[in-house]
Amino acid sequence: MAQAIHIGVIGAGTVGGGVVSILQGNCGLIEQRLGVPMQLRRVADSNPATLAALGLPEGVATHDGFAVVNDPDVHVVVELVGGDGIARELTLAAFAAGKHVVTANKALVATHGEELFSAANKAGVQYMFEAAVGGGIPILRAMRESFTGDRIESMLGIINGTANYILTRMTDNGEAFGPVLADAQALGYAEADPTYDIDGIDTAHKLALLVGMAFGGQVGLDDIHTEGIRGIEPVDLDYAKAFGCKVKLLAIAKAHQDGSIEARVHPTMVDQSRLIAQVDGVFNAVAVTGDRVGETLFYGQGAGAMATGSAVVGDLVAVARDIRTGSRDRVPPMAFQADQRSPLTIRPMAQIESLYYLRLTVVDEPGVLADISGLFGQHQISIARVIQEGQSSESVALVIMTHRAREQNLRQALAEIEALNCVTAPTTVIRVESDDA
Amino acid sequence: MAQAIHIGVIGAGTVGGGVVSILQGNCGLIEQRLGVPMQLRRVADSNPATLAALGLPEGVATHDGFAVVNDPDVHVVVELVGGDGIARELTLAAFAAGKHVVTANKALVATHGEELFSAANKAGVQYMFEAAVGGGIPILRAMRESFTGDRIESMLGIINGTANYILTRMTDNGEAFGPVLADAQALGYAEADPTYDIDGIDTAHKLALLVGMAFGGQVGLDDIHTEGIRGIEPVDLDYAKAFGCKVKLLAIAKAHQDGSIEARVHPTMVDQSRLIAQVDGVFNAVAVTGDRVGETLFYGQGAGAMATGSAVVGDLVAVARDIRTGSRDRVPPMAFQADQRSPLTIRPMAQIESLYYLRLTVVDEPGVLADISGLFGQHQISIARVIQEGQSSESVALVIMTHRAREQNLRQALAEIEALNCVTAPTTVIRVESDDA
Repeated sequence: MAQAIHIGVIGAGTVGGGVVSILQGNCGLIEQRLGVPMQLRRVADSNPATLAALGLPEGVATHDGFAVVNDPDVHVVVELVGGDGIARELTLAAFAAGKHVVTANKALVATHGEELFSAANKAGVQYMFEAAVGGGIPILRAMRESFTGDRIESMLGIINGTANYILTRMTDNGEAFGPVLADAQALGYAEADPTYDIDGIDTAHKLALLVGMAFGGQVGLDDIHTEGIRGIEPVDLDYAKAFGCKVKLLAIAKAHQDGSIEARVHPTMVDQSRLIAQVDGVFNAVAVTGDRVGETLFYGQGAGAMATGSAVVGDLVAVARDIRTGSRDRVPPMAFQADQRSPLTIRPMAQIESLYYLRLTVVDEPGVLADISGLFGQHQISIARVIQEGQSSESVALVIMTHRAREQNLRQALAEIEALNCVTAPTTVIRVESDDA
Repeated sequence: MAQAIHIGVIGAGTVGGGVVSILQGNCGLIEQRLGVPMQLRRVADSNPATLAALGLPEGVATHDGFAVVNDPDVHVVVELVGGDGIARELTLAAFAAGKHVVTANKALVATHGEELFSAANKAGVQYMFEAAVGGGIPILRAMRESFTGDRIESMLGIINGTANYILTRMTDNGEAFGPVLADAQALGYAEADPTYDIDGIDTAHKLALLVGMAFGGQVGLDDIHTEGIRGIEPVDLDYAKAFGCKVKLLAIAKAHQDGSIEARVHPTMVDQSRLIAQVDGVFNAVAVTGDRVGETLFYGQGAGAMATGSAVVGDLVAVARDIRTGSRDRVPPMAFQADQRSPLTIRPMAQIESLYYLRLTVVDEPGVLADISGLFGQHQISIARVIQEGQSSESVALVIMTHRAREQNLRQALAEIEALNCVTAPTTVIRVESDDA
């Protein structure tokens, strides 16, 4: 009788509960695929009520994460504590105890990845984090194990379900940001403090992992230009429709011929005929373009107990297969071999090029468009389309879609334009992702 | 200096040329990910001109596939011969010589899979075929290695680019099947003998692989109900639009509570708001629903030298990583352990349930709809919508959308209806894939 693989879970909240449910509910299927049983040996949580609700067998529950890490009977630790404090300590302790670790903790991998990869490597164990990006979507495995013959050219990701849910409702119903956020909080789609989700920070964490996987180097969070969706108004979504576009909070990464990488997170207009523009509600998607495979897209649930738990269990089975076959370090955690990884050159935001949607607020006087377009022209920014609203004695919207322009030039032009007397409010700027940009 | 992994390619046509191009063009990247170089040692093709065009180094080209298989210096054989004749012999010979095999040959795996898996297992080598389904889309790896904690509930696939290209043009431009097929042949999107693609046979081969991977058993091609797209007329695509749908050639698999599996290939109406309905032209997509991960979708190029070559190279790197780490049989070729696989119970087509689009051709007389709907009613088929064309002295179209009905009942009702004097031509039947079907 083959030896079972023993799992210890630390953190029995939403995702932890999902992992426990899958390991218990689908244990037969997992054994058919793995060849030996996968058994839940320890589950730790600081909240006794959370543990009690799981109905675990005698001796499995504990309040102490380190009891899981140090249990000699546990082969693989699932870290679902979150954050980069105690989670980091538990992970390092697990490695030191010779245990593989599977996690959904994007913040930890994004901020302490290199330290942890190095510790795992030294200990001869694996560190897996498919669940950290895109919930149940197996995007990291595709990058690590499938696109290994490709030079990745670009990635576009909708990787925060909360932000996508809010933008979808604003787009579909014309609702304003504030009420939709409040509703999302009431529905459990947004946290009480929604900062991480709606200001793009969570998306930037995930982008850092995707960039590392695709391009074989580290990117600091400070190097990822990050804007959230608080400034988006329903009127912008209406104009987007007029341009045949939708607005999505996108994680964008692009590789340039000079070896530099763009990595940025911001609201982005995308042509509504593109598949990624059709990804609505809490769903996530990542579009990856490789120099050989061409354009691909991966779509699924980006969050939730079961979808994220599914990704954790997928990693558990992969690690368990390696344990069974005696394989070690079969796949490096970031796709590239450790000695082939190095910090990436991130192109400064001022140097990126894009199309731009600009909604200026101007007084309705003759000559205003001439003044503004003149300043754009002086900064090498060419205007593709203008929508000027009907006459009014008050300020009106002047909406401009530019051709491809350099961010630095746009910023300089806007600074001068906003200093004009005829411009009465800050300009809303939304970058436009286009096939020719 | 670590030892290089040596590759031998048999068949240097479209995909073979892509594999050679990737191994040569991206060799540095592959080494960064693998840790050792991957070297092209032998390339076989019966056509000297094909070989000459690749510009291979001295000593690499050969006209003899068995010279590749028997070269002691080759670690992994890439079989791109196609078909189930000599390709099978070469594959078995490679296994017997202790070599791993990577292929894009769906016909061979669909018809001789169990024999080949067993031979590979006995020889202690791997047999990989990601490129056999969906070209560059890493759908098989997702099933083998990511959804291992999930009970797969259903799969819907657009997995033949030729058929999808033809249906897309017919839908977008109102063109008829014949001229579009001729054009697709001129453009190289369809073969001189297009039977495999447009009659659904190629799609059925790929579905057999997906079903085996998802449900852990064998399915014979005879058990997959297979219809192609020759019978689709532009008028049906127009009616589909009227119902908010598009027509796609879908591979469909569903698991039932009683343990039986549906596996079928036919033109299918899909609500146009669904992501899979947006997959146009030569692109492929597979939507997989798991009991935990929920709904997912994988999209990309389903054919072509580079996209399919990318999948072959992804498998080569995976095999090479296993060679490096001394791992054997880490992942079973069909996700489930060999001793856990068994023939599947395929639900007979007569027993499946679906919504149906029916375009009857009837004489324009009073009482016709009453007669027809009466016969449907007698067979427990409830009608959801009817579109009856304007009056005419000739035959007119009577278009009916049914509620959920059993195939057997529909066939019996149609047999009786088509025997009526008022029905003047065979009925076009298109199944409708609906969330509630």
